[in-house]
Formats: sequence, C-alpha cells, structure tokens
Amino acid sequence: MLVVIMGTVRLPPERLNDTRPHMAAMVAGSRAEDGCIEYAYGEDVLEPGLIRVSEVWRDQAALDRHAQSEHMKTWRAAGPGLGLHDRKLVAYEAGASRPL
Amino acid sequence: MLVVIMGTVRLPPERLNDTRPHMAAMVAGSRAEDGCIEYAYGEDVLEPGLIRVSEVWRDQAALDRHAQSEHMKTWRAAGPGLGLHDRKLVAYEAGASRPL
Repeated sequence: MLVVIMGTVRLPPERLNDTRPHMAAMVAGSRAEDGCIEYAYGEDVLEPGLIRVSEVWRDQAALDRHAQSEHMKTWRAAGPGLGLHDRKLVAYEAGASRPL
Repeated sequence: MLVVIMGTVRLPPERLNDTRPHMAAMVAGSRAEDGCIEYAYGEDVLEPGLIRVSEVWRDQAALDRHAQSEHMKTWRAAGPGLGLHDRKLVAYEAGASRPL
C-alpha cells in the first residue's frame, strides 16, 4: 500500500525566507530516499505562513526509514528556532491511483 | 473509500495575485460542498508559480458532483486567461487514515 501524507504546519509568515533553505534540504534529502514518490512544501495561497505538506511513499517501511533519516533529525532540531508549530499531518493508506 | 487528490498546476508567478481571488472562490465553493473534507492550494516554497493542490473527498460520488459544480465551471473557464497550464492531478483511493 502507498502511504499518502497531507497536512499542514505553521510558521510566522515573515520567517518563510529563513526557513526556505531548511525546507530545500529536507525536500532534496527526502526525494533522494528509496521509496519516496512525492515530497513537497507549499505555502497556502490564502493564508500566509500556513505550510502545506504533500508526500507519497511507496510503503510504510519507506516512511519509517524517512522518520529516522538524518535530514529529518536536522529538520526537527531546527523547527522550534524557526517558529514552526501546529503540525497536523494525516497519513492515508492508498490503493489504486489514477490521473485525474 | 476516501478519494485523496494531490497534484500541481502551473501559472506564471507574476499572475498569482490576479489568480488568488479565483482560487478563493474555488476553495470556498468546494469546501462548502457535501463530502468535501479538504480543499486547498499552496504555492511551492521552492518553485514560484507551481501550485500544489490538496483535496480529500468522502467518496467518488462527492468528487463527481464537484466536477459538475458551478464554481468548477467558472474556474475552468477562467484558467486559460490566467495562464494556468500543465495540470497534473492524481487521485488515490484511500482506506485507513491516521494522524502522523
């Protein structure tokens, strides 16, 4: 089963520029992982500072490895200093997919 | 089965401000639909003009109604004039979900 992750994390909008290099490292590191199909961050177009997370993993094992990765540890350590808060992610077990 | 939709559409970055009111109408209209669990647009934090779409629908029937909605017709009609292009959405049939 694929694991599709969708959710949000908040940061003070004026901190986005400081946070972007950390996000770039997290995106690059995650996309390079075995089993990563999608990994991206977007800022809500209507609500500045609301970061929307989009992830797709091949299976739970890949997601488990991601959770233990060095870039994840670095990201989590940097979060409080960047003002990241209110993390809300939901993981969905996904079967069939199709272009829409 | 839930239907989780993740994907992207592109627009010239300098058109985002013009497009935002159309997005706001689409987001509000969609969230008000029966069966809409999530509906949002974010701009990729690393790639300006790359809009990331996040949707969750209760079932395929709700998504089918969404496709026929008036706000969808308005949005589709406005798209070419706003420079929207390269739409790539994937729909996943999703079973169990859990907070992550």
